[in-house]
Amino acid sequence: MFPAVRFTAAIVCLLFLYLAVTVCGRPPAIAHAATSGGVPAYATNGDLLPPRDYRAWIYLTSGIDMSYSPKAMDMPDHSMFDNVFVNPAAWHSFMATGTWPDKTVLVLEVRGAKSKGSINQRGHFQDTEVKGFEVHVKDEARFPGTWAFFDFDSPEKNGTLIPTGAPCYTCHAAHAAVDTTFVQFYPTLLPIAKAKGTLAPAFLKEESAAVTR
Amino acid sequence: MFPAVRFTAAIVCLLFLYLAVTVCGRPPAIAHAATSGGVPAYATNGDLLPPRDYRAWIYLTSGIDMSYSPKAMDMPDHSMFDNVFVNPAAWHSFMATGTWPDKTVLVLEVRGAKSKGSINQRGHFQDTEVKGFEVHVKDEARFPGTWAFFDFDSPEKNGTLIPTGAPCYTCHAAHAAVDTTFVQFYPTLLPIAKAKGTLAPAFLKEESAAVTR
Repeated sequence: MFPAVRFTAAIVCLLFLYLAVTVCGRPPAIAHAATSGGVPAYATNGDLLPPRDYRAWIYLTSGIDMSYSPKAMDMPDHSMFDNVFVNPAAWHSFMATGTWPDKTVLVLEVRGAKSKGSINQRGHFQDTEVKGFEVHVKDEARFPGTWAFFDFDSPEKNGTLIPTGAPCYTCHAAHAAVDTTFVQFYPTLLPIAKAKGTLAPAFLKEESAAVTR
Repeated sequence: MFPAVRFTAAIVCLLFLYLAVTVCGRPPAIAHAATSGGVPAYATNGDLLPPRDYRAWIYLTSGIDMSYSPKAMDMPDHSMFDNVFVNPAAWHSFMATGTWPDKTVLVLEVRGAKSKGSINQRGHFQDTEVKGFEVHVKDEARFPGTWAFFDFDSPEKNGTLIPTGAPCYTCHAAHAAVDTTFVQFYPTLLPIAKAKGTLAPAFLKEESAAVTR
């Protein structure tokens, strides 16, 4: 579910659930361990344990208010940053090969965008509160489609598997640059993927069509 | 020189020089080594060697189009992201103490903010090209004021020392939350500094005055 995309219509691909605060009927999820160092670990009910040390992982990019829709949001005072991190082992592998190894863990952290504070008067900086949190995991032995998305109520609680029928899976498969991940928005990784020839055929076709339009 | 602040008037504190492309008269700077792993290293002429591995350091925050001035920029199509990184040893020390150790290296990387690309229609994501690059170094034995700012033409070339008379030094000393650094804009570090009681008296006074206005 990377990068962050905000919704203006209910039927838009559920790339990011950070505006959906709670999954109805889900019992409170309490973490008993962690997805430490980027190795995914799961609770007995299938939840993903939280990647507690992700702020010490490798930073990939940030966006603000990204959206598929050209229409403006109705919440002009609710800008959001999204920050994307990946576990170091997966990053080193990507830098060498241009694609992701098994056990890749990508973290999306969403924070509010503040404008006035201290000496700042314009533009936006990031708030201390985390407003949304999601993880995209590659675990070949566990997931039929290799990758899975998990939604978290907070970075400290366990994450719930997003069912494979959700639009985010098909959307990532159709539009993502590398192995169902949005490498086209990761500025230091896109040149690596180009050099290594690992860009997805569907992405290349879409880019080619955009150039000739 | 953190976080990024864009200028609308020539006399505004030179917090970030990323809009000033070249320092006149400076010979081409070629790096022969690196500020590796966050340990600052210098050329014989006093230039700072580039921190080549900074994208594997600890990410602190990103901002977009931050400015001291409430007036709008005259370049609406030239939004900029700034990303801030710090060497891991300094980050671990800050997490434990709430302030920076000697040999702290803070990196500011500036990238253009694109809006339309691939499936994105609104908001902004980061461009592959680095538009500006600066480093803030704490080196007690080397700099009379403990800290120094260096401006780089690119992340691969050596950085030039910004003279201590430049407004950025006095501005950081007057307004920065911790040890002349803008921790007030680093969302994961501000709570640490509050908890450890390391916020600068001048910053606390300024914040208190802002609340009572």
